[in-house]
Amino acid sequence: MKVLVIGGDGYCGWATSIHLSNRGFDVTIVDSLVRREWDREHGLASLVPIASMRRRIDEWSRVSGRTIRFCETDVTDYAALCRVVRDGAPDAIVHFGQQRSAPFSMIDHEHALRTHLNNTVANLNVLWALHEHAPDAHLVKLGTMGEYGTPNIDIEEGFLTVEHKGRTDSLPFPKQPGSFYHLTKVSDSDQIAFACRTWSLPATDLNQGVVYGTATNETELSPALANRYDYDHIFGTVLNRFCVQAALGHPLTVYGGGTQTRSFLDIRDTVRCVELALEHPARSGEYRVFNQFTETFAVGELAARVAGVARGRGLACEIMHLANPRTERESHYYNPVNTNLRALGLEPTRLSDATIAGLIALAQARATRVDLRLIPPRVEWRPAEPNEGAPAVA
Amino acid sequence: MKVLVIGGDGYCGWATSIHLSNRGFDVTIVDSLVRREWDREHGLASLVPIASMRRRIDEWSRVSGRTIRFCETDVTDYAALCRVVRDGAPDAIVHFGQQRSAPFSMIDHEHALRTHLNNTVANLNVLWALHEHAPDAHLVKLGTMGEYGTPNIDIEEGFLTVEHKGRTDSLPFPKQPGSFYHLTKVSDSDQIAFACRTWSLPATDLNQGVVYGTATNETELSPALANRYDYDHIFGTVLNRFCVQAALGHPLTVYGGGTQTRSFLDIRDTVRCVELALEHPARSGEYRVFNQFTETFAVGELAARVAGVARGRGLACEIMHLANPRTERESHYYNPVNTNLRALGLEPTRLSDATIAGLIALAQARATRVDLRLIPPRVEWRPAEPNEGAPAVA
Repeated sequence: MKVLVIGGDGYCGWATSIHLSNRGFDVTIVDSLVRREWDREHGLASLVPIASMRRRIDEWSRVSGRTIRFCETDVTDYAALCRVVRDGAPDAIVHFGQQRSAPFSMIDHEHALRTHLNNTVANLNVLWALHEHAPDAHLVKLGTMGEYGTPNIDIEEGFLTVEHKGRTDSLPFPKQPGSFYHLTKVSDSDQIAFACRTWSLPATDLNQGVVYGTATNETELSPALANRYDYDHIFGTVLNRFCVQAALGHPLTVYGGGTQTRSFLDIRDTVRCVELALEHPARSGEYRVFNQFTETFAVGELAARVAGVARGRGLACEIMHLANPRTERESHYYNPVNTNLRALGLEPTRLSDATIAGLIALAQARATRVDLRLIPPRVEWRPAEPNEGAPAVA
Repeated sequence: MKVLVIGGDGYCGWATSIHLSNRGFDVTIVDSLVRREWDREHGLASLVPIASMRRRIDEWSRVSGRTIRFCETDVTDYAALCRVVRDGAPDAIVHFGQQRSAPFSMIDHEHALRTHLNNTVANLNVLWALHEHAPDAHLVKLGTMGEYGTPNIDIEEGFLTVEHKGRTDSLPFPKQPGSFYHLTKVSDSDQIAFACRTWSLPATDLNQGVVYGTATNETELSPALANRYDYDHIFGTVLNRFCVQAALGHPLTVYGGGTQTRSFLDIRDTVRCVELALEHPARSGEYRVFNQFTETFAVGELAARVAGVARGRGLACEIMHLANPRTERESHYYNPVNTNLRALGLEPTRLSDATIAGLIALAQARATRVDLRLIPPRVEWRPAEPNEGAPAVA
């Protein structure tokens, strides 16, 4: 199966690309490499050094004997995207190519607009390119569990059967996105659903939880295949960030009371979920949504887990509550459903102390690369003064 | 009350601007005049000639003794918009400044993207400009009833109380937009709701039905104040288009079976609804939605109404069913609620035979300006061959 992986240089995209290649998919990565540019712009860097894309795919070829092609293409350029789709004649497109940080999107107007343009224009382009050049190809798009917000009812997988005044219908699940980043994902979902209804595209929307870990079977094969390990306040997801803090003896920074609860999954499950979606494609005209996570945790609960593992390794570890920089409910109901991917065969990787210990050890080994100034949140949803999200510029 | 009317050169925007001015509001029109450019680009023209913006506001000053200021500004330019908001220090912004045609947005990728950028970037910019420069100003944004699609339940005003598995919540009403244009309006609504939650902006989202008529008390005061009368397949709304067809002896072109049902209102009610929203502003942080329409009609029912009036005036009038160029349900439940504006004092103008007769007479008086080639639909939602929505170019 020929698969284009848009955004294949990113955190989830790279791990997925080599996993799919390893499993026999014919993979072409399409990426503008802009994620590396955002790191430079904001003075950030992955804790584990990552190789250049050229080096990555050469090394992958060397260790696996398999070839991944690479197109350095910005999919917000429609003509360029169409060339890639026509030439590649893919059976499926996996679309990760988005600015994925909520804080990045809330820094200021320019970052909100850049996120909006990068994400929604790319998505619109991908849909039109499929419609015009590969109408039977299966679109697998990464959404986020954050699209749903925290409603006071169970979160179903994309749709909700509503009874209202004696009538009933199955309708798109109501969304309450919590940042300009999340807004782009909701807009994408609406666009995809429309394209499926109108053009009979087959599409799977993977509403993914917060991903943790960095390693998969494939990334472990060589240092040049290593994945990103972001710990900064912009791109660092919460569990990875806690593990770096624990390794460095920095207090674990919990935003607000820490009772806000989210969906999580190990990156090893991310790559498997995408594989499952590709192996069991949507039908022509079908828009289906899978909630892609394995467990839910309150943020404070995760901090306690990490602190426990850290102390077990002889590290002093404190938990510090910071004023919540986000506008979000801290006390809320949260019960999302995730049966679709399980039904296709996903065997969840539960968060283990070993995984946490591995992330802490990885951070300890790279301790000299940590810049502690990058950890405290600097982007506020309602700033009293203008945000300074770009420490390199400050 | 100082009001910026973004898009004040358009069909609803112009009528609203002079109505608000007449009612004592201090009006500044902010418009890039791009709507006139789209007419030229597609070889279209309002059946009733419209004066230049300069002539319009000079004439308004002459007949009313009131001043409307004009800023020729494209609100997709954030710096320019911020200057206007800072200098204008508005109490409210009425935002009409959008590409409003579903067929335009479905012509091809370029028109879909242009619609997306024009509408969603403008909306994002307006929200940020309010947040940064006028956080207490009331945003009155034009949405559309088309955001909801045709669910099998009653359409409430923006929110739906959901009971699900023994729990309950009031959630955003699920949306099923039917074109790239409608998708932009849904994205706008989500952005505005987020901005209200996060930045405590006060906002009113007017989900407007299909507008008919051209005249208001104010446009009638002078030919130089006349409003647009679009009858073409791109910008002509259905009732106005039927009246032109009846006047010219052209069959009334019903798309598909004609049982598809929509919400409608007279443009005289549009201007009154905006006035009511301004007079009764949203509270700080409140995102409220008013369904802005007065009646619902099936398209075939409207055709029969127009044919009846035309025949009463001695015109031969046939009804012709064309293959539906859109992807939409033709048989569906449709029962939207519209109590919010009524509660504020709206007295609905029902569609009368006199209104239909007036529109037919207006078209008869301008019959030599009609280009019949502009009437049949050329934009298909699922084209077998590429759309040719731009007759001037073809």
